[in-house]
Amino acid sequence: MVDIATRVYNHKWKVDTIVRSLIDTDFYKLLMCQSVFRNRPDTTVTFSLINRTKSIRLADLIDEGELREQLDHIRTLRLSRGESTFLRGNTFYGKRQMFRPDFMEWFEGLQLPPYHLEKHDGQYELTFEGKWPEVMMWEIPALAVLMELRSRAVLRAMGRFELQVLYARAMTKLWEKIETLRQIDGLKLADFGTRRRHSFLWQDWAVQALIEGMEGKFIGTSNCLIAMRREVEAIGTNAHELPMVYSALANSDAELAQAPYQVLADWHEEHDGNLRIILPDTYGTEGFLARAPEWLAKWTGIRIDSGDPATGAETAIRWWKARGEDPQDKLVIFSDGLDVAKIAELHAQFAGRVKVSFGWGTMLTNDFRGLAPNDGLAPFSLVCKAISANGRPTVKLSDNPNKAMGPADEIARYKRVFHVGEQAAMDVVV
Amino acid sequence: MVDIATRVYNHKWKVDTIVRSLIDTDFYKLLMCQSVFRNRPDTTVTFSLINRTKSIRLADLIDEGELREQLDHIRTLRLSRGESTFLRGNTFYGKRQMFRPDFMEWFEGLQLPPYHLEKHDGQYELTFEGKWPEVMMWEIPALAVLMELRSRAVLRAMGRFELQVLYARAMTKLWEKIETLRQIDGLKLADFGTRRRHSFLWQDWAVQALIEGMEGKFIGTSNCLIAMRREVEAIGTNAHELPMVYSALANSDAELAQAPYQVLADWHEEHDGNLRIILPDTYGTEGFLARAPEWLAKWTGIRIDSGDPATGAETAIRWWKARGEDPQDKLVIFSDGLDVAKIAELHAQFAGRVKVSFGWGTMLTNDFRGLAPNDGLAPFSLVCKAISANGRPTVKLSDNPNKAMGPADEIARYKRVFHVGEQAAMDVVV
Repeated sequence: MVDIATRVYNHKWKVDTIVRSLIDTDFYKLLMCQSVFRNRPDTTVTFSLINRTKSIRLADLIDEGELREQLDHIRTLRLSRGESTFLRGNTFYGKRQMFRPDFMEWFEGLQLPPYHLEKHDGQYELTFEGKWPEVMMWEIPALAVLMELRSRAVLRAMGRFELQVLYARAMTKLWEKIETLRQIDGLKLADFGTRRRHSFLWQDWAVQALIEGMEGKFIGTSNCLIAMRREVEAIGTNAHELPMVYSALANSDAELAQAPYQVLADWHEEHDGNLRIILPDTYGTEGFLARAPEWLAKWTGIRIDSGDPATGAETAIRWWKARGEDPQDKLVIFSDGLDVAKIAELHAQFAGRVKVSFGWGTMLTNDFRGLAPNDGLAPFSLVCKAISANGRPTVKLSDNPNKAMGPADEIARYKRVFHVGEQAAMDVVV
Repeated sequence: MVDIATRVYNHKWKVDTIVRSLIDTDFYKLLMCQSVFRNRPDTTVTFSLINRTKSIRLADLIDEGELREQLDHIRTLRLSRGESTFLRGNTFYGKRQMFRPDFMEWFEGLQLPPYHLEKHDGQYELTFEGKWPEVMMWEIPALAVLMELRSRAVLRAMGRFELQVLYARAMTKLWEKIETLRQIDGLKLADFGTRRRHSFLWQDWAVQALIEGMEGKFIGTSNCLIAMRREVEAIGTNAHELPMVYSALANSDAELAQAPYQVLADWHEEHDGNLRIILPDTYGTEGFLARAPEWLAKWTGIRIDSGDPATGAETAIRWWKARGEDPQDKLVIFSDGLDVAKIAELHAQFAGRVKVSFGWGTMLTNDFRGLAPNDGLAPFSLVCKAISANGRPTVKLSDNPNKAMGPADEIARYKRVFHVGEQAAMDVVV
């Protein structure tokens, strides 16, 4: 029996929308948004989309009208009653009412601010400007829309069975990864792949496959909507945008040097337990840890998001020991450039010495390498970053100079203030 | 939107039926049935299911109650009005009204006769007895039911995503075969996989994949129902049961020696063109061709179904030349033990010398080798054959002694009458 109503309903959509919910975003955006809403609500920021993979000419692949339709649709979204109830009522990391009533009230009224879109040299220049708590909520949906429109542009040329086999191959590939990973004793792994996903449905499939296939070693997803629908834990803490904006707002070198710690001081007031995770690499991990205040060593763990991950973890272990902490009580979350072999290698090196966890991103939700003609569906490196705050440019150094961003003179200043010396360059694949 | 009515409808089936139509069968069964209905309608035959792969203990895998439910359901099937219209109205091989009105009237009233089911030593003993035109229609549905119940028994232990990945792998495997085969210039290939299919839905998927993927090199399917639904040609001619039953009915060695030719004489009266295909191997190809009447060399082609296929085709080519026929005008259909490499090899050897066509069976519709734990879904060799006619045992020799069947003394007699000497034994995989 054909369900006529469903068919008619599906066909009356003027546009096949990609982002259909304000919580189809990373959970840590909500956590950070609440923190920003409380501590720096009136900061004016600009976020900008940056395609690091110049060879993929997004403006040639993706129709501007289609892109605008998708972005316009996101501006029509409002938090639904069920989503609000979920956020208000859920227990995250064992804590009830993680989201304060004043934040929830604000979130229920949120409409994403206007966007600015231009084409330059085969790329889209997509920027968002306005109050920080509003603008920051564009990051993940903007990335998801661009990623999925690029997928669709490539898929459009394929036949019906060619498409089915494409997904059959992608499923097989992911399942084989799961079959390998689940053999690792004591593994803990989360989905961090929202921002670089092939498509929403594919991320949703991947999460469900992990639930069935990982036999308890899958601990949750960063995607708030999928966490709600699939009844798994929403996972996440904080990201570089906090120290980047706090640092841009600093009025002197002395204030700048303290800015990253001020972020964590604000965070410390609000959160405990698994949410107290240090992200140390914004302006170099070594220096950040060396000059960190005493209380930071008491935090639950650290997230390693750039540079050589083993080096980063060893640095953290030495730091904890120097501060009189037992590394075995500490959590190390790896979240950069992971795939099966790297996860296995890092787990073998660090399990037992610290608590280890993995935030698996692009190679979980977008490993379509080798599956389409001319490798047209291979993932690429798209980011959406705060580039200025109250008119001042932001800077990111990270532990990999290839991930650095900001004006050259400001980068030089930050390197001086944060005592960052020579860094090992690593390819940024995705 | 969930379609409640569909869901309720699906759940009210007491049994998930495997065969849902009397034309979910090989087209040549219908052609042969019409011939039998006209020429030998009152012959009493016994058909029996034989599992050549003893290591697969079907009676341990498959619940007897479930098997009976499926077989009982088949006995409730009647030719539907649309199916009857399709058979009456369709053009097969360019010929209108291939099925005579008296046969269609009989077919519209057909109910399959009772079955007899016992268990012996881990195997089912499933037999059908009655009038030849009725009993012969059990062959394909009986095989399809046993094959699919075995698949289900193995699938039952698998999880939801494990299942999805199983089919993803099977699809990928088949699609890769299609990608290889479609590169062969001038290839012509048909689906002959009904009897050994993994499941009905899988065969239907395979046919659709061939339609899209083979770019015109796919010429049709032996499955009459799928041919109707997917609007492709129904393909088939005749099979061993005709000479086997005719031979069993022979009253003397002299009559026996003529029986296989009598089959084709009856066929010759009814059919021309692409339906005049010789199946020469029932009692040895060499002798059959050597003693064949002159008019047989005028037939359209030959089907090679046992023994070494290249040897069989070379034998046919020599025979045509000896009878003054040009092999380039003749069609050779290969239909035994085919997979991609063998198809490519035979095509390279014979294309241009004769017209070549392939009837691809088990490795098209049931290549689940290596896809389930303990290789539990690997295809196996199940047949359903006429074992007696009017109380006399049937005999098949074929060009491979491992495919021979019948009582030992009768086999010896047939070998003498048909001058069959030493034969090369070949493994029967499926």
